[in-house]
Amino acid sequence: MSEVIDKVLDLAKRRGIFWSSYEIYGGIAGFYDIGPIGVKIKNRIVELWRKYFVKDNSDFVVEIESPMIGPAKVFEASGHVESFTDPIVECNNCKRIYRADHLIEDVLKRSVEGLKPEELTRIIRENNIRCQYCGGELGEVRLFNLLFTTNIGPYTGNLGYIRPETAQGMFTAFKRVYEATRQRLPIGIAQVGRVGRNEISPRQGLIRMREFTIMEVEFFIDPEDNNIENIPLHRFKETKLNILTASEKEKDGKPQEFNLEESVREKIIIQPWMAYWMAVASSFVKALGINEFYFEEKLPYERAHYSKQTFDQIAVINGMKVEISGHAYRGDYDLSRHMKYSGQDLTIFRKYKEPKTIKKKNVIVNNTKLKDKELRKKVMELLNGKSAEEIEQMIRNNVTIDGKPLGEFISIVEREEKVHGEHFIPHVVEPSFGVERTLFLTILSAYREKEGRVLLSLPRHLAPYDIAVFPLLEREELIRKSMEIRENLSEKYEVLYDDSGSIGRRYARADEIGIPFAITVDPQTLLDNSVTIRDRDSWKQVRVKIDDLKISLEKLFRGEVFNKIGIEVNDSNE
Amino acid sequence: MSEVIDKVLDLAKRRGIFWSSYEIYGGIAGFYDIGPIGVKIKNRIVELWRKYFVKDNSDFVVEIESPMIGPAKVFEASGHVESFTDPIVECNNCKRIYRADHLIEDVLKRSVEGLKPEELTRIIRENNIRCQYCGGELGEVRLFNLLFTTNIGPYTGNLGYIRPETAQGMFTAFKRVYEATRQRLPIGIAQVGRVGRNEISPRQGLIRMREFTIMEVEFFIDPEDNNIENIPLHRFKETKLNILTASEKEKDGKPQEFNLEESVREKIIIQPWMAYWMAVASSFVKALGINEFYFEEKLPYERAHYSKQTFDQIAVINGMKVEISGHAYRGDYDLSRHMKYSGQDLTIFRKYKEPKTIKKKNVIVNNTKLKDKELRKKVMELLNGKSAEEIEQMIRNNVTIDGKPLGEFISIVEREEKVHGEHFIPHVVEPSFGVERTLFLTILSAYREKEGRVLLSLPRHLAPYDIAVFPLLEREELIRKSMEIRENLSEKYEVLYDDSGSIGRRYARADEIGIPFAITVDPQTLLDNSVTIRDRDSWKQVRVKIDDLKISLEKLFRGEVFNKIGIEVNDSNE
Repeated sequence: MSEVIDKVLDLAKRRGIFWSSYEIYGGIAGFYDIGPIGVKIKNRIVELWRKYFVKDNSDFVVEIESPMIGPAKVFEASGHVESFTDPIVECNNCKRIYRADHLIEDVLKRSVEGLKPEELTRIIRENNIRCQYCGGELGEVRLFNLLFTTNIGPYTGNLGYIRPETAQGMFTAFKRVYEATRQRLPIGIAQVGRVGRNEISPRQGLIRMREFTIMEVEFFIDPEDNNIENIPLHRFKETKLNILTASEKEKDGKPQEFNLEESVREKIIIQPWMAYWMAVASSFVKALGINEFYFEEKLPYERAHYSKQTFDQIAVINGMKVEISGHAYRGDYDLSRHMKYSGQDLTIFRKYKEPKTIKKKNVIVNNTKLKDKELRKKVMELLNGKSAEEIEQMIRNNVTIDGKPLGEFISIVEREEKVHGEHFIPHVVEPSFGVERTLFLTILSAYREKEGRVLLSLPRHLAPYDIAVFPLLEREELIRKSMEIRENLSEKYEVLYDDSGSIGRRYARADEIGIPFAITVDPQTLLDNSVTIRDRDSWKQVRVKIDDLKISLEKLFRGEVFNKIGIEVNDSNE
Repeated sequence: MSEVIDKVLDLAKRRGIFWSSYEIYGGIAGFYDIGPIGVKIKNRIVELWRKYFVKDNSDFVVEIESPMIGPAKVFEASGHVESFTDPIVECNNCKRIYRADHLIEDVLKRSVEGLKPEELTRIIRENNIRCQYCGGELGEVRLFNLLFTTNIGPYTGNLGYIRPETAQGMFTAFKRVYEATRQRLPIGIAQVGRVGRNEISPRQGLIRMREFTIMEVEFFIDPEDNNIENIPLHRFKETKLNILTASEKEKDGKPQEFNLEESVREKIIIQPWMAYWMAVASSFVKALGINEFYFEEKLPYERAHYSKQTFDQIAVINGMKVEISGHAYRGDYDLSRHMKYSGQDLTIFRKYKEPKTIKKKNVIVNNTKLKDKELRKKVMELLNGKSAEEIEQMIRNNVTIDGKPLGEFISIVEREEKVHGEHFIPHVVEPSFGVERTLFLTILSAYREKEGRVLLSLPRHLAPYDIAVFPLLEREELIRKSMEIRENLSEKYEVLYDDSGSIGRRYARADEIGIPFAITVDPQTLLDNSVTIRDRDSWKQVRVKIDDLKISLEKLFRGEVFNKIGIEVNDSNE
């Protein structure tokens, strides 16, 4: 498999899809440029995600953009300052730094996920694991925080961090968005934005990067709204989720298939809305051309600090398993932490269907007995900040003031009150995709070799260009005609025009960047106003009249079988 | 004017267009969230920019994406580590920090742009300018670097910066993009991406931010390709550029109008391609609905360190003048610096039309006289790394080896050689827009008040929604019909459906976020299958049959006069 990855990396570099950033300075691990072809595919992937996650849910999902840089307080509240860490270990001799768990896993071939630094140190000592570079002794394992740190403004000590997820922007803006939009739950706040994670030793191309783009939804719900009827699960009636549950995983089991509704009913997925978003993610990933995947439940120690239940969506491409999305039930962790750290009220008011009558104790001050100012002040100081229940207890305990019982000045009366609702902290479900990783997996899954040549069999709606237009020869009339056709098709399609090099090389180039159809203008065009259309995947060609070209292309993009749209010709132009 | 700005800031907050980030933590200067309505307008602005700067120039412009974070070396090469600074001064008493030039300008009401720290300190002393907060004495003015600093990876001392412009990503990737695409000049590399500038005291809403998005093109040209015929200036034959030249500016003159071609011929704009991109920028800014603007040439001391000539495009909105884009002729500054710092060859080969014949000196070794290995080695060591000219000089100077003249072993022969071209460093022209600033100015310029109400008269192609659909009353049949219409129009348009609150309030809301047309389903709809269409700007309404709705809307979006598309009705629904 790593052979295919190498081939894709090579193709990506050669064809301007992506490459290691700052190459002229020797590159720097974990940073990639997305090239001209890559940007086109990437933008289409982002638009596709927007369709599935935002537009198709526009009744309750809106999109915002918040900054990458935030003040320290935000990431103290989010728990990242404390918990967003990886274990590292340094060689005492050459000072090389390793990610400790990865090093142990590489050497001992067993998972040590979730173990504490002391435990990792012990394993290193017991197994005499040494520096892989110089053989030196390794130090103590310690935690390294993955937040990129900076300073905001000219005053030193104004610490800021680069966000490691876009989510905190949605939590800090939750109340503002809620007020400015529908003012009821559920509400999803989506964002496509860049994040930074200061990985210790990033590897695997676009799969683990130090800076990348996330597309995610923070979906705010009322945890007591248990009416599954309110969730549009019916949109995914046919959807089956392939789930490797935590319990199956612990006994090395396999993913099992569940109906969406069944996964909710049997509490395989503990929050029904999470099941909904997992179904959306399934449709989205299929639309990327990735057909094999399953959802793996994370074990408690594998979950992020904020999560009550997490599923990773695992794509299976040529036998390789890679996480393509994460689905976390964050509960009320984030909003309650931000309430605590900011002192702001982030609760929502839940109106009861019927007002409830409750009994409430009230404190009554006997003013006639409290005319003395000094005495009154003493009593009030004593009562300050206490609840009616606490005061009642004090009276029962015969608390006195200036020798007189408190009950002489104060009495507690129980009254009935109507209450119309209560405040609560919304819960959050989060489906999250990495853009560059999705791009990489989409390309990896589209990679084909045919007769020793490479082709990128991308889904048509994700190709960097819809159509290529080539004059067969560098002849004025053919070029002019080709330009005309390009002009004509550009209203509706993304068209690449290319007249450099042999036609065979141009076809090869178009195949390598995944252009579904190539139109060629040849001498016969000048005789009968016809062109050939060539199919990227089968390399078959049909000849159609230019007058019919638009209709033919419409049919093709609707999915019509290729050789039904015109007369098949030998690939004489090849 | 600042009154209008305050009104726009209030509207933006209330309607979810944008607001200060991290509000629950008291906000933090220079950071803004873009809200649900803002993201929709912003995305349309970015697409419009893409159309004007990338798609309409797709023969020679491609788009890439590079990281925000880069290693120190990149920004040492770019000159930002040395030159991207502002002068600051600290109060000796309360330790408040001011941007020194702004402070002086605020107090003395005169420009001190371009003065050195010592000169600013002198002005502060001479005018006894003190801390505006506590009256304390101010210290010495010093330079503060505006790059956000971070550390990359787990090793301390691996300094990284957040880019203050996307440009360096295009320069470091130039060779890679050049190879992977057209392999000839001119080539433009465009990018839309986030940047950070650690401003000392950001103010003015979205105009000066600490983190924002830039859309810019680095346009690489052959500086000796002086054939203006190769530049598609003809596309802008009718375009006139309003230019305040440096010389006019120095004598407090006014902008003057130039034909595009004239501005090039008379060398008002020293690089013809820069004139081309200024014409593109003119069209783009007009399409934002901003009709009044001019180009102001920067004086030498006002220009960035890399620029040979710079124009700011200044938008004039309600009498307020704000920079909306920058146009810099960066020459070969960036590529030559990166060549020097990286040691890589970033030159391009310019082929001569005809090969040139040049005379070249060659070194001939007389092997028969150099059979002795030791002697041969000594001679070769002596010659190592020297040019033919230098060796010839040595022979003339009677250099000897083992007592024998060098000329006995070596001779220099002049031969004719054909040379096919030469290497050169491309020059760069850069048009650059800030996205959030453009969003802000677009909204500011669209802001209207009418009969005490607010409306956003955005160009139709930039509105967050094309159409609003409202049922007049909360009645089942009206709601169902409205939903149907929404469904039907959603294929082609961005549609907002809203059934909450009175119709008057819904119209007002739609006006405030700039939706051009509102369709209302009322009881008459159920009788004769007609609806009303209401125009945002005139508040006029026409009644049309639902069957004609699509055609009517098409006409409206093509620019047809509103009351020509149906029977005008009194705004009885209002």
